[in-house]
Amino acid sequence: MMPEKEQLGLDSEMKRRRNGETWEFEDDIDDTSVSVSDGVLLGLDGGTTSTICICMKMVYFSHSQLQSLPILSRAVAGCSNHNSVGEIAARETLEQVMADALSKCGSKRSSVRAVCLAVSGVNHPTDQQRILSWLRDIFPSNVRLYVQNDAVAALASGTMGKLRGCVLIAGTGTIAYGFTEDGKEARAAGAGPVLGDWGSGYGISAQALTAVIRAHDGRGPSTMLTTSILQTLGLSSAEELIGWTYADPSWARIAALVPVVVSCAEAGDEVANKILLESAQELASSVKAVVGRLGLCGQDGKDAFPLVMVGGVLEANTRWDVGKEVMKCISKYFPGVLPIRPKVEPAVGAAWLAWNFFMKEYNRELCSS
Amino acid sequence: MMPEKEQLGLDSEMKRRRNGETWEFEDDIDDTSVSVSDGVLLGLDGGTTSTICICMKMVYFSHSQLQSLPILSRAVAGCSNHNSVGEIAARETLEQVMADALSKCGSKRSSVRAVCLAVSGVNHPTDQQRILSWLRDIFPSNVRLYVQNDAVAALASGTMGKLRGCVLIAGTGTIAYGFTEDGKEARAAGAGPVLGDWGSGYGISAQALTAVIRAHDGRGPSTMLTTSILQTLGLSSAEELIGWTYADPSWARIAALVPVVVSCAEAGDEVANKILLESAQELASSVKAVVGRLGLCGQDGKDAFPLVMVGGVLEANTRWDVGKEVMKCISKYFPGVLPIRPKVEPAVGAAWLAWNFFMKEYNRELCSS
Repeated sequence: MMPEKEQLGLDSEMKRRRNGETWEFEDDIDDTSVSVSDGVLLGLDGGTTSTICICMKMVYFSHSQLQSLPILSRAVAGCSNHNSVGEIAARETLEQVMADALSKCGSKRSSVRAVCLAVSGVNHPTDQQRILSWLRDIFPSNVRLYVQNDAVAALASGTMGKLRGCVLIAGTGTIAYGFTEDGKEARAAGAGPVLGDWGSGYGISAQALTAVIRAHDGRGPSTMLTTSILQTLGLSSAEELIGWTYADPSWARIAALVPVVVSCAEAGDEVANKILLESAQELASSVKAVVGRLGLCGQDGKDAFPLVMVGGVLEANTRWDVGKEVMKCISKYFPGVLPIRPKVEPAVGAAWLAWNFFMKEYNRELCSS
Repeated sequence: MMPEKEQLGLDSEMKRRRNGETWEFEDDIDDTSVSVSDGVLLGLDGGTTSTICICMKMVYFSHSQLQSLPILSRAVAGCSNHNSVGEIAARETLEQVMADALSKCGSKRSSVRAVCLAVSGVNHPTDQQRILSWLRDIFPSNVRLYVQNDAVAALASGTMGKLRGCVLIAGTGTIAYGFTEDGKEARAAGAGPVLGDWGSGYGISAQALTAVIRAHDGRGPSTMLTTSILQTLGLSSAEELIGWTYADPSWARIAALVPVVVSCAEAGDEVANKILLESAQELASSVKAVVGRLGLCGQDGKDAFPLVMVGGVLEANTRWDVGKEVMKCISKYFPGVLPIRPKVEPAVGAAWLAWNFFMKEYNRELCSS
């Protein structure tokens, strides 16, 4: 893709020196001392709350052994959603967290075989292209680069890097994403709170806050949520909620009230119960839309397909289990649904994806040569 | 309230000189040249979009002649909601717009008899106290000062300064506010979009945007809103709406889509129609809550009471008339409801309020002396 740049001799020294100190650590690594002769993989999960980069040993073997691929290092940074922090800050965070992961395990960019960047805010092919174009400037030209929405890494974390099936994420936000074996993809929700992600942690909490205001106004039934939420936030009246939401409208701060809603529902509060039930139905409707569009359930609607479930709202290990309720709604439509709760984090899924993508190209090239 | 300050001699020179150039124009006004011997009133309507200050001639006569009180000047400034722009910026905007109004008609602070500041974001007695405390530093100590929520000025604009009845505002945001003759007050909604002001212009547009995303996802029926909204915004796909909302989440920008929703509903789009119908019901439920709590409708629910209706959503002079639909919902419950669409702007209502408050105190003092 970049013959001109290589001809200009940009490929080594300039890439090494970009961004000041970010890559300086590479000077101290002796090429012959690199312990990973086959190279390494980078898997990156970039979300609105944090960004995690996993460095994994590259091994050329069959997919079934993927789970035993050793993790060499793990680095953590802040938000890398370009919609939230802007393009430049997002780019710097992503570059730094990759440098940190490599530095931690004594590797450098020349050892990297493939990178999978799975970041939230990648909603359109143009987002992908924009990220790929600056990513190409960081790594040597033989490194394979893949850019995906972060939901794809979450799916891969439950399917061992295979892009087949559906993933439902419900944390602060929510999205459903799916792939067929032959590469068709579809998504639902994941558009942010203005555009109606109602089953998300933010959505659940915003509805609970609304219920408190409605009860106070006389527009809605009284609810246990009033006392519980005001107490949790250290406020003395429902009017004070207005100032509280204006003071800092960050979605994560509002989404943090989900456990209060769950507790009230468990204690028998009808309003809280209704919010959780409707949220579960919302989440299920996202999955149904994706599965239906991709035909993951087969023509008779009964084929088996994996549904990877990720995020705080679905993991809540409580009596009122939103994840279980979502499954109940979905299995009515698709009896073949196979719920998976991943044992590894999405960044590992991203590294597995990098491995899968790389091996597919590698094998194709082997066959054609 | 402030004897200490007056004893310290702060009342004239320091007040004159505060905030640099704001009040410098007063130096050029000769006290004897002030044309308004009885003094002036200031009425101020401070919203999230703009702030308007009216300077009105003070006249000591009966209430029935209030409508003929001459407006001496009108000044306009930006947002003065402290929740949106912060306390300091809000204060500066409010002070400047009052100075502008006085300067425009050649009056100064010593001519002011009463000020009514009706500003959005006044949701709690502490908000009122905070504003009063800095307002007292601006004006001579004999000036009567009143601070209200901006909804109160809107009510007064329809009732000629009398605080009796209910007002429903539906512009970018929405609020219902009511007063009884004996001073009881109640409000509903007006809590911002996070807290569920669904009948507002923002609410209507956000639901329309959500409907577009849902249709695109396969979670909802297809709708004319897709083509109409994308065309209005110059976007080519529903995914691009995500970036569009993130780029600038200001409520007014989103609320500006209301006319598109109305057009689609008029053209027979079911989704748009449902959004408007439900929004009208939401707005009606705010009014019902206020009227019910205050008993404005009397014990049998049939007493007459004024309902002042204000704001772009209710004024839309189109075939699909949200205001008319709201009235239909309300009059089912309260046949005595008397809709009023004010002919003057809320800032005039605020000035009338200042007159009413002032005259009440003035007459009480006359009687007791």
